[in-house]
Amino acid sequence: MANVFLKRKRKKRLEQGHPWIFQSEVDYIEGDFEPGDFVNVYNHQRHFLAKGYINPKSQMIVRVLTHHQEDELNESFFINRIRRAWAYRERMIPGVRSCRAIYGEADFLPGLIVDKYEDVLVVQILSLGMEKRKNWILKGLLDVFKPKAIYLRNDVYVRELEGLPQEKGFWYGECETEVIIEENGVRYIVDIENGQKTGFFFDQRQNRAAIKPLIDRNTTVLDCFTHTGSFMLNACLYGAKHVTAVDISEHAIETAKRNAALNGFTNVEFVVANAFDYLREAVHEGKKWDVVIIDPPAFAKSAQTVPKALGGYKDINLNGLKLVKDGGFFVTASCSYHVHADLFRAMIDEAAFDAKKILRQVHWSGAGYDHPKLLAADEGDYLKFAIFEVHSRK
Amino acid sequence: MANVFLKRKRKKRLEQGHPWIFQSEVDYIEGDFEPGDFVNVYNHQRHFLAKGYINPKSQMIVRVLTHHQEDELNESFFINRIRRAWAYRERMIPGVRSCRAIYGEADFLPGLIVDKYEDVLVVQILSLGMEKRKNWILKGLLDVFKPKAIYLRNDVYVRELEGLPQEKGFWYGECETEVIIEENGVRYIVDIENGQKTGFFFDQRQNRAAIKPLIDRNTTVLDCFTHTGSFMLNACLYGAKHVTAVDISEHAIETAKRNAALNGFTNVEFVVANAFDYLREAVHEGKKWDVVIIDPPAFAKSAQTVPKALGGYKDINLNGLKLVKDGGFFVTASCSYHVHADLFRAMIDEAAFDAKKILRQVHWSGAGYDHPKLLAADEGDYLKFAIFEVHSRK
Repeated sequence: MANVFLKRKRKKRLEQGHPWIFQSEVDYIEGDFEPGDFVNVYNHQRHFLAKGYINPKSQMIVRVLTHHQEDELNESFFINRIRRAWAYRERMIPGVRSCRAIYGEADFLPGLIVDKYEDVLVVQILSLGMEKRKNWILKGLLDVFKPKAIYLRNDVYVRELEGLPQEKGFWYGECETEVIIEENGVRYIVDIENGQKTGFFFDQRQNRAAIKPLIDRNTTVLDCFTHTGSFMLNACLYGAKHVTAVDISEHAIETAKRNAALNGFTNVEFVVANAFDYLREAVHEGKKWDVVIIDPPAFAKSAQTVPKALGGYKDINLNGLKLVKDGGFFVTASCSYHVHADLFRAMIDEAAFDAKKILRQVHWSGAGYDHPKLLAADEGDYLKFAIFEVHSRK
Repeated sequence: MANVFLKRKRKKRLEQGHPWIFQSEVDYIEGDFEPGDFVNVYNHQRHFLAKGYINPKSQMIVRVLTHHQEDELNESFFINRIRRAWAYRERMIPGVRSCRAIYGEADFLPGLIVDKYEDVLVVQILSLGMEKRKNWILKGLLDVFKPKAIYLRNDVYVRELEGLPQEKGFWYGECETEVIIEENGVRYIVDIENGQKTGFFFDQRQNRAAIKPLIDRNTTVLDCFTHTGSFMLNACLYGAKHVTAVDISEHAIETAKRNAALNGFTNVEFVVANAFDYLREAVHEGKKWDVVIIDPPAFAKSAQTVPKALGGYKDINLNGLKLVKDGGFFVTASCSYHVHADLFRAMIDEAAFDAKKILRQVHWSGAGYDHPKLLAADEGDYLKFAIFEVHSRK
């Protein structure tokens, strides 16, 4: 194994628990290696720090697998990591059958994402280091999950940065490409072949459940950016009188309709529309709901686009707030990592000021148990979710 | 009613929903008033902003009761506010019988705190404006809660800043001064006469429940600053094998023992000790627990004491982390408003670095539903609560 020596002057990110080593932190490398090989990492005093895999093509030249010199990086190491990731979910979400089962760095398996949909796994392998251990990973997934089928959703751009091709298709076994899962007592059709990312957004599981107390049989709900209907379906489950579900994608709305039918929910109006326009027009028409939910896709894909993204968030939050009946609830989220919590909060503050509303914060949270994060890796802290009670002012 | 006019150059705190007006924001006052009277508040263009009560003795000269000019500040206004505060708790915490029932500014009743212990209320009246409406408040509490007794815990220093005496005793009816309540399925003896603050800390209700998945019948738990035993009791309820409960106060430990006995929990070791010393010695002795809980009282009572407080937090968090078995859980909290979330997080980061631990964040939250907060009033954002999975590094 080659040995990577870090520069003397660098932030002690690695010692703080951050799992990435950047090109700029490396002083020199002793020994030969192929891209994707395992390497040892040392500080400038040749003190052992970690083991990981190397890819000189990537800005993140090394990703850490362990901080323990005695750990052997072999098949059983990988299988054990997979087993621990699943044991953690079973502990935190008793009885879980569908969730994010492996969350890359936060499960000490950098570059590997596994979502479990009942007895089907959908996998993303995002780095060369993981690609080279596909056999070990497959062995681990079969051992731990005993799935009927495993589908690879390696159709993501980041693979190209690692020198890997984009691809998708069955990796193990076969099944229908639509799988039915249950979460919070709601059933969903998940399209593992063509759905967004791996087919479903598990990170909001606890947040979807958090709307329960807002809803009774007199409650009307507006769910903007409903996608395949997750908040809408939870609102129906909790007994809402009526839900208006809006999304710009006809295909998403078609799936949302099928999901509603699957659960026997009939009190839903489906609207194919740009949510920005829909919200503005609803304000103009003087419409009101008891609960307004705004759960948009990420508007800021990079630090450069944050100002523009904030403008977008403010627009929909401002209009969303205006549509809430006095004393009703506003549910808002952002999954843009680059829009940090303080920026998101300040944006809501401004939107409330402009909408002439006083907001009482009832709930503030992030992603659920199946999306843990390393304290040292800010990158994991992307989801903001909040519930406010809305009061008018003059 | 006198009319208070605000200066042209001021932050628009009031319009943002902040419920306090400071002396420095007031330009002039038209009309006569007595301290505690209701007043109208206008901006420099004589545009109506709010109504509230005035106390020239206080730095917060006006506290806002409503933003609506048509609201009449009378008995039914107060009763209605009390009714809404309780309706909110019943909605958010189905079946609740004991909780913080009125939380001052965040329930639009600045200066009034009411904790409900089954059919007994404990009340703090913290401002002259509220003291002058005691009859209306009493009427409202009797109407809405129909309590057996109401106990006043006006033995707090802030009343002196308002020109009010400190006092305590029954305000309505009578009962034993020890009341038994139930929360998360655990029973507690609450001392309404001599307990800290109003007798119980309801703000951690949801956080106490959040430790459930960390615990099974093999789990050993260390609960530092156990006070009257709340985390210890929840750990026992969730089936912990053994809990060590530490507090410096003999009286607190006596109550914790009585609480354990009340619930039939026998697997607890009680230790009367300074938690700082206990933690240090336990590290020295090489002790380990599966779960370590650190829930200290507020170390920073003012902005000036933050550096010292952070030193204290770091000390107990560093030693606490060292006492967690590899792969176990660390539960940590701070209720110091002045130690903001980012400072608290940075302190944990440093403690983890020094303890040579990698932390995986499982849960991060604040106070529960019965402690809502006004988005515009940072002061409400005081409680930080986090759960980490702890991994060693070399």
